[in-house]
Amino acid sequence: MAMEKVERWGCFELALAGRQDGNPFTDFTIHGRFRGAHETVDADGFYDGEGVYRIRFMPSHTGVYHYEIDGTFGPSRSGAFEVTEAAEGNHGPVRVAEPYCFSYADGTPFYPLGTTSYVWELQPDERIAQTLESLKKARFNKLRFCILPKHYDYNLGEPRSYPFEGTPMDSSVLTKDNFYQYTGKANGSRFDFTRPNPAHFRHIERCILELQKLGIEADLIVMHPYDRWGFSSMPREADELYWKYVITRFSAYRNVWWAAANEYDLLQDKKEEDWEFYGQLMVDRDPYHHLRSIHNCMSFYDHTRPWITHCSIQRQDLYRTAEYTDEWRRQFHKPVVLDEIAYEGNIQHGWGNLTGEELVRRFWEGALRGGYPGHGETFLHPKDVLWWSHGGELHGESWKRVGFLLDVLNGVPGNGLRPAEKTFADWDCVHAVPAQADPAAGSSYHLFYFSFMRPSFRDIPLPGDGEWKVEVIDTWNMTITEAGIFRGKCRVNLGGKQFMAVRITRRT
Amino acid sequence: MAMEKVERWGCFELALAGRQDGNPFTDFTIHGRFRGAHETVDADGFYDGEGVYRIRFMPSHTGVYHYEIDGTFGPSRSGAFEVTEAAEGNHGPVRVAEPYCFSYADGTPFYPLGTTSYVWELQPDERIAQTLESLKKARFNKLRFCILPKHYDYNLGEPRSYPFEGTPMDSSVLTKDNFYQYTGKANGSRFDFTRPNPAHFRHIERCILELQKLGIEADLIVMHPYDRWGFSSMPREADELYWKYVITRFSAYRNVWWAAANEYDLLQDKKEEDWEFYGQLMVDRDPYHHLRSIHNCMSFYDHTRPWITHCSIQRQDLYRTAEYTDEWRRQFHKPVVLDEIAYEGNIQHGWGNLTGEELVRRFWEGALRGGYPGHGETFLHPKDVLWWSHGGELHGESWKRVGFLLDVLNGVPGNGLRPAEKTFADWDCVHAVPAQADPAAGSSYHLFYFSFMRPSFRDIPLPGDGEWKVEVIDTWNMTITEAGIFRGKCRVNLGGKQFMAVRITRRT
Repeated sequence: MAMEKVERWGCFELALAGRQDGNPFTDFTIHGRFRGAHETVDADGFYDGEGVYRIRFMPSHTGVYHYEIDGTFGPSRSGAFEVTEAAEGNHGPVRVAEPYCFSYADGTPFYPLGTTSYVWELQPDERIAQTLESLKKARFNKLRFCILPKHYDYNLGEPRSYPFEGTPMDSSVLTKDNFYQYTGKANGSRFDFTRPNPAHFRHIERCILELQKLGIEADLIVMHPYDRWGFSSMPREADELYWKYVITRFSAYRNVWWAAANEYDLLQDKKEEDWEFYGQLMVDRDPYHHLRSIHNCMSFYDHTRPWITHCSIQRQDLYRTAEYTDEWRRQFHKPVVLDEIAYEGNIQHGWGNLTGEELVRRFWEGALRGGYPGHGETFLHPKDVLWWSHGGELHGESWKRVGFLLDVLNGVPGNGLRPAEKTFADWDCVHAVPAQADPAAGSSYHLFYFSFMRPSFRDIPLPGDGEWKVEVIDTWNMTITEAGIFRGKCRVNLGGKQFMAVRITRRT
Repeated sequence: MAMEKVERWGCFELALAGRQDGNPFTDFTIHGRFRGAHETVDADGFYDGEGVYRIRFMPSHTGVYHYEIDGTFGPSRSGAFEVTEAAEGNHGPVRVAEPYCFSYADGTPFYPLGTTSYVWELQPDERIAQTLESLKKARFNKLRFCILPKHYDYNLGEPRSYPFEGTPMDSSVLTKDNFYQYTGKANGSRFDFTRPNPAHFRHIERCILELQKLGIEADLIVMHPYDRWGFSSMPREADELYWKYVITRFSAYRNVWWAAANEYDLLQDKKEEDWEFYGQLMVDRDPYHHLRSIHNCMSFYDHTRPWITHCSIQRQDLYRTAEYTDEWRRQFHKPVVLDEIAYEGNIQHGWGNLTGEELVRRFWEGALRGGYPGHGETFLHPKDVLWWSHGGELHGESWKRVGFLLDVLNGVPGNGLRPAEKTFADWDCVHAVPAQADPAAGSSYHLFYFSFMRPSFRDIPLPGDGEWKVEVIDTWNMTITEAGIFRGKCRVNLGGKQFMAVRITRRT
C-alpha cells in the first residue's frame, strides 16, 4: 500500500473509533505526536460524535512523518505519511514579518484586506453559496466571522445550528423594539456546555476550507457579546472546554486566524484575567501558533501583551479613523489591522452608513500608513440580509475597489508600506515608502495620497539626481496613468479630483 | 444754526486745519473729549495729510454730546452735537455675550459666519465693486482682510497703494517659482515708517463703510507675514506708530474688529512680548473696545490672555477641524470663531482644495458645537483672481449655503447653540441645544446633525410627556421638511443621504 500523501501546510487527518460511554467530550483523551525530519509536533484530537475521534496535523515541512496516537479514548495507533510540496496557491499560514508586516510561511508578502460577515456560515446553504460566489468576484483575502451565533439588530433569526446540545429560547417573542433586552444571558435557553455539537463545528470547517480554496484567511471570532443564548456568559469550565474544542478542531487549517473576541469590552461577565486565560490557551494549545488578536469596542485591549500577534482595531473616533494607523504602530509595535473603521451602507447606526467613497478613502489612508484596513457593508435589505452579518450579495461600491489597492500593494518592493519618516512632500498628503526602505539611503519608491482634497496639480520634488517615473493613480476610478519621466521636480496634473495618489519610482 | 446730528453708533467726525511743518504724523498731538449724559470718552485724532487733522467719535448713547479738542496740532475747539436713535439695521458694535456668544450692542444676537478675502480692498476699483456685488448676493456677515498688502503664492501683483510713503522693490523679478525667497524683508523696498500714507487708510475706511452698509463686520488683520516690503519686520517704534494710526483712524467705525495678526507665529521677527504690546495698545487706545483676536498658523496663541476677546482659530489637524470646537470652548472659555478651517477650491495647497460639501459640513459641525465657522474660496483662475485674496466673483458651492445655516441659527431661541451636555441621541451625531438652555430643566429645542453619515432613518427619543414638532433639515439642498408631531419617540426618514439634520421643538 502506497504511503498516504498530504501536501505541505495541508491537513493530515485520522478518524478513529473510540469510547462512547460517559461524556466522550470530557471523559477521555486523544493525543498525537507527529515527527518529521525538521519538526516534532504534539497535537490533541477531539471527539466528533457517534463514536468517532479525530486528530489533525498540519506539517510545515516536506518528507516522511511518523505519528503515534494514544490516550484513553481507545487503542493506541502509529503510522507514517509523506508530505509533498505545497500545491500552487498554498503558501502556508500567515505569520508576522517583524515588526509591522505579514507574510505567508513561504515568504510571500501578505496584505490583509478583509471583510466582515459575522455569521455568514450559519445561514442556509443557498445563502452560503451566494456568499462564496460574491467572494469569488471580490478580492478580499481575509474574512472575519463568528463561531457562535449572533443576536443583534438585524440578527433576530435562528442560526442553522448551535455549538452545544440543547434548546434555544423561544425567539418568537423577539421584535425590532425589544431584542436588546435579551442580551448576554440564557433567557430560557437550555444548553449543555459539556456537550459540543459536532455538526456545528464540522460545518464551520467546511466553510473554512471553502475560504481556503478561494485564498481567503478565516479570521475566527471565538467569543462575542451579541448573544441571547448564554454563550457569552458561560462559567470558566465551559469556556475552557469550548476554547479547547475550537482550537483542537480548527488549528490544523492553515488559513485560520484567532480573534479572541469581537468587542471584548462588551462581554460584561469577562474580566481581563479571562482574556489572558484564553490567550494562554491559544498559545499553549495551538501547535501552529496561528495569528492571535482581540478586538475592542470602546477601548483597546493592551495589544502589547505577548500573546497578541497584531492589533485588531475598531476605530475610537467618529472622524479620524484609519488616519491614526501610524500612531497605533508606534504605540503597539505590531501590525495594525483595521478590522472595523465603519462600514459602507445606509442603516441607522453610525458605524454602518458610510459612503463607498469614504470607506475607500479610509482604506487608502490606512494602507499608506502601513495598516491593513477592513471592509464591511450594511445596506437596508427587505429581508434583513446584510453582508456584514449574513453575507449574500454585495451591494456597495467600495468592495469593487479593494483589489485595485491590493494590486498597488503587491507592486510595492519588499513587504508593504510604512509612513515616510520625514516627508519631502508637503504637510497635506500621506507619504508612504516601502516598509523595508532604508531611511538613510532613501527609497526608490514613494506613494503620495491626497485623500478628500482635490488639488488641480502638485509640484513634487524628486530626490537625488536620477530619473523618476511618475504615475497618477485615481483610486476611485482605478486608473494608473504615467505622467512621464522627470528629474529634480515634477508638476503633476491631478485634475482637481478627490481620492488621487501619485507614485514615483526611481529609474536611474 | 441747527445742531449737527449723528445716529447712535454712527461716526461723528471733525476735520481741522493744523500744523504741516516737521512731521505731522509724529510731531503733534490732537486729543478729544466727548461728553454725553451717559459717557465721557477720550479719543485721539490723526493727521490725514495736506494740513488736515481729523478726529472721530462713536457715541454709544442718544442725546446731546459736548466735545473739546486740544493738542499741539493747532488751536483748541469745542462744540456740541446731537445723537439720534440708531437707524434701521444699525445695531451697534458686536460684543461678547458671555461666555461663548456674540451680540450687537443693542442686544440682537450675532452669529458671525464670515469669509476671508485678504486684500480685496487693495485691488482696482472695478474688482472692489465686483466683490461688493458678490457680498450682496452672499449672506456673509463678517469679512477678514488685511490693512497691509500681501505677497504670497497667487499674490505677486502690486497693491493699489502702500501704507507708508516710499517705493516698493522691483517686483518684475518675481516668478511663481521664486516668490517665496522674498519674504518678510524689505528686499530693496524703501518706505519711511514715520510717514503713513493717508490715501491708503482713507481708501480702507471707505471699504469698511461699504461693508457696514451691507451689514458686514470688518475683521481687520493688522499684521501678517506675507510680505516682501518689510512691513512685517518693522522696528518697535514703527510698529507703535502704525498700530496707533490704525486704531485711531478706524476705531470709531462700529463694524470694526481687530485681528492682531494672521498666522502670528509665521512673523519671525515678532516675539510674544511684541504681541502682548500690540494687545495692550488695542486695550488702551481703542475707546470702544472692539473685539480683539489673534490667529495662528501652527500653534494657538494663548487665547486665555485678557486682551483677547475670542478665539480666532486656524485648524491644526488635516482631518478633524470644526469637530474640535467644543474642546476649544472648554480650553479657552471664549467664543470660538473658526476663521480658517480650509477653503473650498482646487489649488495645489491642502488648505485650499476642499469640496463645497466638505466645507459646508465643517460649517455645520462647528456651528452645532457653538462655534462660528468661516468661509474661503481658492479656485484656480486664469488671471489668478482668487476670492480668498482678491475678491471678485464667487465660484464655489459652499457660499450659497451659508445663509441657510444663518437662518437656522437665527431661529434658535436665545443667543445661539452649544453642544448638549449629555445627549439622549446616539453617540454618532452632533447634538446641539440653545446656548442658554438650562441643563437641569432640559431644552425645548434640539438640533441633531449626521454629518458625512447617511442613515436611511433614525429613531429619536423625545424627552418628557409633551408633543414635539419634528423637522428634517437637508443642509446641502437647503430644505426643511416637517416630519410631523410626535410624543415619546419618533422615527425620522432621512433618505440615506449625507449632510442631514433633525430639529425638534417642544409644543406642549
